[in-house]
Amino acid sequence: MLKGFTVPRSPLGTAALTPPPPWHYAGNVLAVEFWNDPDLSADILPRGVKLDSRCRGRSVALFADCQFTANSDEHLDPARYQCREFFVFLDATWQGSRIAWCPYAYADNDAAIMRGWVEGYPKKLGAVHQTRTFAATSAASAPLANKSRFAGCVSAHGQLLAEARVILRERADHLVGLLDRPVVARRYFPQLCAGVHHKAVVDELVRCTMNNLLIANLWVGEGELIFPETHGEELDMLGPIKVGRGFRFSFSCSISDCTILADLTV
Amino acid sequence: MLKGFTVPRSPLGTAALTPPPPWHYAGNVLAVEFWNDPDLSADILPRGVKLDSRCRGRSVALFADCQFTANSDEHLDPARYQCREFFVFLDATWQGSRIAWCPYAYADNDAAIMRGWVEGYPKKLGAVHQTRTFAATSAASAPLANKSRFAGCVSAHGQLLAEARVILRERADHLVGLLDRPVVARRYFPQLCAGVHHKAVVDELVRCTMNNLLIANLWVGEGELIFPETHGEELDMLGPIKVGRGFRFSFSCSISDCTILADLTV
Amino acid sequence: MLKGFTVPRSPLGTAALTPPPPWHYAGNVLAVEFWNDPDLSADILPRGVKLDSRCRGRSVALFADCQFTANSDEHLDPARYQCREFFVFLDATWQGSRIAWCPYAYADNDAAIMRGWVEGYPKKLGAVHQTRTFAATSAASAPLANKSRFAGCVSAHGQLLAEARVILRERADHLVGLLDRPVVARRYFPQLCAGVHHKAVVDELVRCTMNNLLIANLWVGEGELIFPETHGEELDMLGPIKVGRGFRFSFSCSISDCTILADLTV
Amino acid sequence: MLKGFTVPRSPLGTAALTPPPPWHYAGNVLAVEFWNDPDLSADILPRGVKLDSRCRGRSVALFADCQFTANSDEHLDPARYQCREFFVFLDATWQGSRIAWCPYAYADNDAAIMRGWVEGYPKKLGAVHQTRTFAATSAASAPLANKSRFAGCVSAHGQLLAEARVILRERADHLVGLLDRPVVARRYFPQLCAGVHHKAVVDELVRCTMNNLLIANLWVGEGELIFPETHGEELDMLGPIKVGRGFRFSFSCSISDCTILADLTV
Repeated sequence: MLKGFTVPRSPLGTAALTPPPPWHYAGNVLAVEFWNDPDLSADILPRGVKLDSRCRGRSVALFADCQFTANSDEHLDPARYQCREFFVFLDATWQGSRIAWCPYAYADNDAAIMRGWVEGYPKKLGAVHQTRTFAATSAASAPLANKSRFAGCVSAHGQLLAEARVILRERADHLVGLLDRPVVARRYFPQLCAGVHHKAVVDELVRCTMNNLLIANLWVGEGELIFPETHGEELDMLGPIKVGRGFRFSFSCSISDCTILADLTV
Repeated sequence: MLKGFTVPRSPLGTAALTPPPPWHYAGNVLAVEFWNDPDLSADILPRGVKLDSRCRGRSVALFADCQFTANSDEHLDPARYQCREFFVFLDATWQGSRIAWCPYAYADNDAAIMRGWVEGYPKKLGAVHQTRTFAATSAASAPLANKSRFAGCVSAHGQLLAEARVILRERADHLVGLLDRPVVARRYFPQLCAGVHHKAVVDELVRCTMNNLLIANLWVGEGELIFPETHGEELDMLGPIKVGRGFRFSFSCSISDCTILADLTV
Repeated sequence: MLKGFTVPRSPLGTAALTPPPPWHYAGNVLAVEFWNDPDLSADILPRGVKLDSRCRGRSVALFADCQFTANSDEHLDPARYQCREFFVFLDATWQGSRIAWCPYAYADNDAAIMRGWVEGYPKKLGAVHQTRTFAATSAASAPLANKSRFAGCVSAHGQLLAEARVILRERADHLVGLLDRPVVARRYFPQLCAGVHHKAVVDELVRCTMNNLLIANLWVGEGELIFPETHGEELDMLGPIKVGRGFRFSFSCSISDCTILADLTV
Repeated sequence: MLKGFTVPRSPLGTAALTPPPPWHYAGNVLAVEFWNDPDLSADILPRGVKLDSRCRGRSVALFADCQFTANSDEHLDPARYQCREFFVFLDATWQGSRIAWCPYAYADNDAAIMRGWVEGYPKKLGAVHQTRTFAATSAASAPLANKSRFAGCVSAHGQLLAEARVILRERADHLVGLLDRPVVARRYFPQLCAGVHHKAVVDELVRCTMNNLLIANLWVGEGELIFPETHGEELDMLGPIKVGRGFRFSFSCSISDCTILADLTV
């Protein structure tokens, strides 16, 4: 009789960390493509996932400033259902198909972290910020225009993990090299019983299904990106040896499904 | 040789809580007009300020989601120079002139709090959120359209202080009843020497000078507003006995001056 | 080759949200026993768990101010491994044995939330505070003495969820009515594949194993407790109809095991 | 008729950021003495303050984990009146007398920041943490004993500003080289009127009066300390060229007065 898509399960089902799918997102994204050392980034892949041999080490760092809703006007509870997130995606392959692999992700909100784990994103708590644009022009508002600059940053537990800059150059119609391959992630839930701490009870490689992806106001330009050295994190091992284009756009999408590619517990 | 507009004064002047004016802001605003009990709200006014007899008790609750810059591209440091703020303004008069008086204000950022005190806004630390709109349409993005709903909230130290809802009805060209009277505030800095704790060293009534105010994408509709009862705050004493219109717009402005109306230390 | 007890799995295993067990905790606890309406609290129990018929509706609200370590001196990373938590425990039975059931829990730290989920505690992000005592006497330090008062509170997303007060009366040697029954919790991990959102992939009723429990400086007195009405939470439905004793003590314990009592997926 | 020691001034005086003095503090301190480059640290001093020629560049970095009360049991509002703070003190002289000069300070609470400004401490918002000791022994609790290790850290806006480690060696009866000279600080409040942004309206050099200082459980040992490079801060310019002893103790004190040494506006 208890209800809720996640814990805590409760009589009405409204206490759960997140309502059930479909999950709808709208937001702004700042992203930078970069190349890490493939000798290091190959080590971050699970069994069966390989670096994409056509672009070994190519990756994307993505800052998202999001609003969420499910079926109950959750966007009218902005303290709970807005989130700012950071993702790294590696160009990879699964059984010969091009995919994007997500080794690290951070979000500033518990509901977003929970949804991440259910989708396979390994989210931790982080503070994520990005420069914004506003409808009223001002020195304080970065315009969507040639030479306009945007910055993004993420920190966790008081340490700066990544910092990005993008200079816009031109408007574009299509995202190329970003969000154009399916994301593969890993749903993972450990055991606590003595003797089996090393074996997860859930360890699934999944392909995320993103529906109704809309991109608006896409601008492409030059990127800058650093991953400072930190302790208690390993993001810096994926640090850029070369940085490429920068991107800034608005997006929306919906999520309510995934495909299980492999059961890694066996 | 020490530099800096505020503490901490330092060799380079970059450690100061806020750079010197001019201060440029861009942001989004959600606002609700309301009427409080004039028998109570008259008690929140300093010497010389009176409730506006033409609209006794009329007030505005305003949530602002802002980006700041001064002269050094501060908007490219989004972790430090974005801020979300909440203000209450009372329709009042000073020497017969219509003004807006600000009895309470909250912001989520130390630089914004410091600028507030320098301007005369009595800012405290609070968590402020409001529903957002994005360029990519989605159930998760509140559109700027008839019937679209937005929510705002502010809390401090884990207590909810105010909650607002606005239903948009129609686009408007001009703000009427909001930001159309000069704000009067109180610059106040106490003494700590024994025996004079009751006498401030700075106690100035000032008229804030807001330059280059731009309003964009203004929508007007119906508002809802509550100020829940709390401890350690007195905002709830100004709670609505009637609620009027709601507003949602983008804005920008600059601040670098104020006019001292009265020295209240004498 | 990837290492880590939880996500994110990484080459060195230091990026994981929490190191593997054994998990060691030390902290201070403020707790209040109370009775909720058994007609309501019976609805918060999963299949097979019943309210304890000898004390229907008896519950405990517990605020813990903790430091954590595993095997790598994690307590020397205080920004990451201190946590403040809030729990509710209901007196219940499982197959006739007395247990404590945890329907709701909050913590201020992502590592603590993750460990909670692995143990079966349905933790959400919350801000938790309690009055402290210090070795140097002061009006600012609550002493461990008759008539001394302590307060605790928890909020989430800007809403106050619970507030407690305890007046100490006398020192005690043994905890009676608190932490004297095994905790039963629910390990739960949902599916995201379309069509099976209502069926969890992990849904285990587990008995938590707490080793080496030490209690120090135990004081017992009178408690006060309220659960204010909130939205997006259901804690207030378990609100006190009667409040009993209050407790304040220091504790330590270790956790590295649990016993699976039932698989609720079948 | 408006009441309150600070803004916001209000009918009851309970909305003010901080109640009036006397202010009582109790807390735990972790501190490390260090030497910075006197050619650099001499530049952080205001007119009339000089580096102490007997110990040029000697300084202390101090992390305090505090509870506050005034006259209304503020310690029973732990969400509002606990604070964690970080200070740097330089050994200096004023008119030949030994003093400690505070160039930088951080606190995690708006009331603490406000009290700091009133006292002359140039506090900014920061997240401050230190390892704790608890009455129940555990691997998770650092004991007060030879070889026990404690860590402290402070970050602001997602950047790590300072990190300290202390290894305890022996219990001591008296603090020597720490809190044994009066603190001199600078009360400073800028003007906003156009044309006078460079001239503060309040700029006082003050000697802080600390009453009833109690030290308990004092341990002395070896310290480690780093100030990582950051942007938007200048603390790193005071970084250690040599590190000395470490300290860990509990303390309490009261503050209700200061002495104005000089008016720097003239």
